[in-house]
Amino acid sequence: MDALHTSSGLTMTGSAKRPHVVIVGAGFGGMNAAKALKDAPVDVTIIDRNNHHLFQPLLYQVATAVLSPADISAPIRHILRKQKNTKVLLAEVTGIDRDQQQVLTADRAIPYDYLIVATGASHSYFGNDQWAPFAPGLKTVNDATSLRRKILLAFEEAEHETDPDRQRSLLTFILIGAGPTGVEMAGAIAELSHAALASDFRNIDPKAARIILVEALPRILPAFDEKLAKKAQDGLHNLGVEVRTSSPVQDINESGVVIAGQQIEAGTVIWTAGVSASPAGKWLGAEQDRAGRAKVDEYLNLPGYANIFIVGDTASATQAGKPVPGIAPAAMQGGIYAASVIADRVSGKLNSHPFRYHNRGNLATVGRSYGIADLGKVKFSGFLAWVFWIVAHVFFLIGFRNRFLVLFQSFWGYITFQRNARLITHDYAAVVSPKPRERELQPS
Amino acid sequence: MDALHTSSGLTMTGSAKRPHVVIVGAGFGGMNAAKALKDAPVDVTIIDRNNHHLFQPLLYQVATAVLSPADISAPIRHILRKQKNTKVLLAEVTGIDRDQQQVLTADRAIPYDYLIVATGASHSYFGNDQWAPFAPGLKTVNDATSLRRKILLAFEEAEHETDPDRQRSLLTFILIGAGPTGVEMAGAIAELSHAALASDFRNIDPKAARIILVEALPRILPAFDEKLAKKAQDGLHNLGVEVRTSSPVQDINESGVVIAGQQIEAGTVIWTAGVSASPAGKWLGAEQDRAGRAKVDEYLNLPGYANIFIVGDTASATQAGKPVPGIAPAAMQGGIYAASVIADRVSGKLNSHPFRYHNRGNLATVGRSYGIADLGKVKFSGFLAWVFWIVAHVFFLIGFRNRFLVLFQSFWGYITFQRNARLITHDYAAVVSPKPRERELQPS
Repeated sequence: MDALHTSSGLTMTGSAKRPHVVIVGAGFGGMNAAKALKDAPVDVTIIDRNNHHLFQPLLYQVATAVLSPADISAPIRHILRKQKNTKVLLAEVTGIDRDQQQVLTADRAIPYDYLIVATGASHSYFGNDQWAPFAPGLKTVNDATSLRRKILLAFEEAEHETDPDRQRSLLTFILIGAGPTGVEMAGAIAELSHAALASDFRNIDPKAARIILVEALPRILPAFDEKLAKKAQDGLHNLGVEVRTSSPVQDINESGVVIAGQQIEAGTVIWTAGVSASPAGKWLGAEQDRAGRAKVDEYLNLPGYANIFIVGDTASATQAGKPVPGIAPAAMQGGIYAASVIADRVSGKLNSHPFRYHNRGNLATVGRSYGIADLGKVKFSGFLAWVFWIVAHVFFLIGFRNRFLVLFQSFWGYITFQRNARLITHDYAAVVSPKPRERELQPS
Repeated sequence: MDALHTSSGLTMTGSAKRPHVVIVGAGFGGMNAAKALKDAPVDVTIIDRNNHHLFQPLLYQVATAVLSPADISAPIRHILRKQKNTKVLLAEVTGIDRDQQQVLTADRAIPYDYLIVATGASHSYFGNDQWAPFAPGLKTVNDATSLRRKILLAFEEAEHETDPDRQRSLLTFILIGAGPTGVEMAGAIAELSHAALASDFRNIDPKAARIILVEALPRILPAFDEKLAKKAQDGLHNLGVEVRTSSPVQDINESGVVIAGQQIEAGTVIWTAGVSASPAGKWLGAEQDRAGRAKVDEYLNLPGYANIFIVGDTASATQAGKPVPGIAPAAMQGGIYAASVIADRVSGKLNSHPFRYHNRGNLATVGRSYGIADLGKVKFSGFLAWVFWIVAHVFFLIGFRNRFLVLFQSFWGYITFQRNARLITHDYAAVVSPKPRERELQPS
């Protein structure tokens, strides 16, 4: 390792000789990598453009007014506050210089000895980016609060509306893509309209809202066992969700969605289908797959660069010829693995074993009391699977307070059918300067 | 009453002959007026530009990352869902035509027989509106989340910063105006920096942050007993807040505040001083006081208009020659009073008694465990007064869930010194159209 790279202003006092590990992204992959490096003889800098780690699998509950953003977020600094070898940097990464071994932000270059890239993914419209304004996706807190506003305003507008056709359109919600997010969100919108809002309006009956879940494949939840997926579909049916499988979307426009040559008028269309990787693959000059993920070798290394690891949704990894899925547990395992290889190499052990993804199973919920659990050998559905889903999710939420609140709110919502975060917030022209002053900072 | 006005499209089916009461504003005044009309033989329409009632006295806890916006908000529709004579309208009022007896929005005119105006207040810079961009105030959810972002980003920027002067400036917080909001917010920022953030940074020591509370008058909390105010000031001192009384602000600029001819550099300046009334006084062509409040008679009527009531911060009411204060209890009492007079008149009773404001006392907290209570004859301070403050505030929060959460979070914060809503959210250019489609609605 080049000593120059470790003597930057960013390394810790008294440890200028320790290798510097830079982690880009504080999602499941990056956070777990950082935590796994706690006792390693390295200095760690973790960079994220947000100050918080986000528990993305519950983001749909923010979009459907069940939880507040802070309920599923925790400050990155706070999670890592006791980890003295680790610094947190709030900054937007703009590139990576793999020859100079530097991560670039708007105002500085951060040298690294080892690099872990864990920048996640955003939604992909499969080449139809013109659909984006009509069918927003769900990846960030802002996506979620925007969607929440859109969904709640649809009911408000329908209440005003006097044209019955337009009213019907406003009360139609279409979700495109029947993976776990689409299924869970469809159930949540069904319960919002059929239960939580049931008695709040005077001119409309929210129970009349149509929720349509559209899927191009012949079945929902392709990652699950087929029988379980069928049960989930029955569960959705019981909640009043219309499921349309084998229905590829032909067009999305301002007033709805075209399927099988027919336009369905809908005030709200939500994209729960594809994701595409962050630009990290481009930054690294990596070979990318169709979704923009950077291809990695069996050590999660960028081929030819034993000190650059790519984990989670940013990476295209394969195992026994099959792709490692782009889900939270795979990102966590990847982050922990990369950290262990770095710890090995720093302590002179060079023959690390390749990455092995362990599939611990798949879980999904359908509404407030029904779930499915596909744990490989064990498969079950119903109330027990729903409780299992809650416990598993709460267990992974970082920080006690979040665990408690999510659990409490889930049960409270179960008891009362209410939504606690039905807040329509507007972006007024802010009196406060809304942009971070980061760019005013001088390079150190 | 003119029958034409009650036969609008907005009145309830089967009750076209009942007088129509329109309430503008769903704050403490408007909500309490609506609830008090529950059993009156009238149809009620309550109009607000937000979908939620906001518990404004706790807004500073959102700005200081203790609570989430949804914790202190409840959907107006939900609160009034069982009140069958009442409709809720999400719309921005643009004017009032008192001759035609109509409330005007962008796309319609809503006729009324009785009108209650309860549109509240926003901050006033006493003629120095050029200070607004440098010293934001705190009246809406957006104000609070903007301030939260500004405060949390100040620490992030200081962590990056290498110039010690600029670092010191970033860690200086000035609050202008030592009423309850200024005192409570100063205490909350002091605890945020001296306790909650204490171990989260590597380059800065958040404990070194300066919090300065500036007041033009010779003492803080002028509405309180002088001895109690002194105790609060001691409490602030113990928390490390610098209190500067008899210090009128001469200027506020991009880099700080000028007091006594001297510039104090500060990255964050917060306006907790004056308020000015909403434009309702202008809409009504009313005589206004210096703060823009509409002068009302002893029945809270616009003089000459026995069917127009103005309550809460929008009104300039006097009692025994003294002004009724612009605080939540006065607004609540005003709203209930206006409703009772309307109920009287509708049932033929024309000799209502004049409005009488009952001062039930003043409460304030200083940090996480110290409060002062000025209940007239009874005055006390310390931990007991803090508990009393919590109970009183939680009691007034509408809806059980909010009550529970605020109580839980207050005690949890007390135990752990942590902040649970440390979320810096950015306003990215939204993929979703962020503006309500209200203007697309056709007039009914």
